[in-house]
Amino acid sequence: MQTIEVMESVYERNEKLAAVFNEKLGARRVFCVNVLGAPGIGKTMSLQRIIEGLKMPAFVIEGDVESDIDTRKLKALGIHAAQINTGGACHLDSPLVERAFEAELPDFTGGFLFIENIGNLICPAEFMIGEHIKLLISSVTEGSDKPYKYPLAFEKADIILLNKWDLLPYVDFDWDYFMSGVRKLNPSAPVFKVSGKTGEGYGEAIAWLKTRAKPVLK
Amino acid sequence: MQTIEVMESVYERNEKLAAVFNEKLGARRVFCVNVLGAPGIGKTMSLQRIIEGLKMPAFVIEGDVESDIDTRKLKALGIHAAQINTGGACHLDSPLVERAFEAELPDFTGGFLFIENIGNLICPAEFMIGEHIKLLISSVTEGSDKPYKYPLAFEKADIILLNKWDLLPYVDFDWDYFMSGVRKLNPSAPVFKVSGKTGEGYGEAIAWLKTRAKPVLK
Repeated sequence: MQTIEVMESVYERNEKLAAVFNEKLGARRVFCVNVLGAPGIGKTMSLQRIIEGLKMPAFVIEGDVESDIDTRKLKALGIHAAQINTGGACHLDSPLVERAFEAELPDFTGGFLFIENIGNLICPAEFMIGEHIKLLISSVTEGSDKPYKYPLAFEKADIILLNKWDLLPYVDFDWDYFMSGVRKLNPSAPVFKVSGKTGEGYGEAIAWLKTRAKPVLK
Repeated sequence: MQTIEVMESVYERNEKLAAVFNEKLGARRVFCVNVLGAPGIGKTMSLQRIIEGLKMPAFVIEGDVESDIDTRKLKALGIHAAQINTGGACHLDSPLVERAFEAELPDFTGGFLFIENIGNLICPAEFMIGEHIKLLISSVTEGSDKPYKYPLAFEKADIILLNKWDLLPYVDFDWDYFMSGVRKLNPSAPVFKVSGKTGEGYGEAIAWLKTRAKPVLK
């Protein structure tokens, strides 16, 4: 019982801080996307494809347990990025993100802020970090049963990318089973088939993101 | 500070209970394997391949946030299995596993107990659940940078399976970079290239498991 009480107050405190941070971002015309997905699902590669296609101001905050591999990768491509290392924690929280944002981007207004969460399909779905929307990345190699096994991430997603579509011929992925699982949890989030490797499929997702961000970016 | 104190006592309490449970398992000649890996990495498929090859008494406890998909899959193949659902929690702990073991296997002696942990590369590595060894599954589709990003799981593994080896021609996987990351954290764990889909590569891993289990199985 004690554990549950502690956790509930952690959630509640985080929710409140995230709502305040989200308002602050909105006031600065920053549209914030919380990017969720398992390890190795292609979060960084997808962000690279999306930002190249957006052709608008964009910044990435990279969350990792350790290492700055992805931040270095993005910077090498000319994409603005900063690193958060949690040193063991399995998700980002709002104060962590806000601190990184204020330190790295004190003057950023009018653009996209992508926050690549820790590679984990469970806990990141439970903690708001100031986002306007959650973008969930799944993949055909991960398997078509993921909505059934990790329902919260699929339920809370505003947009879903199904990555590694180029590997479809080599794996047993059941699209109908996957979509039936998604739709039981989430009646409206669009699902886009993409391949980080070939770049295919991101165009529609980028158009959707632009439309969704418009009221915030103005 | 308060949070840290709470977490430390949770860890400590779990470690003590896990050590007691491990002794109990040893006294019953049960060799316990904690199976770790990200969502969709091929934990269940690998267990199926291993158990078919072992030709010894074996039982699987399946850990999932939700669903009993994997337990049903194993049972349909004639493999003894039971389900734990954490309903949100991102790892198993020792009391959860011991309770499932006592309920499902009150008379089990002389064999392998595989515990498929929650699909998550982070938290399961931090919580002992009575195991003699940790078996970590990674894959070529997950990417060669995983040891650098999720070091604890690779550091604590006693044996590593690199799964989806059949997909190697279609992905950018750098074996030398992967192994260099593994060896910085873990000088001795053997790494076996396997394919759950084709069944290739499990023979040596099974032989290794048998040798390692011998002193417990007697």
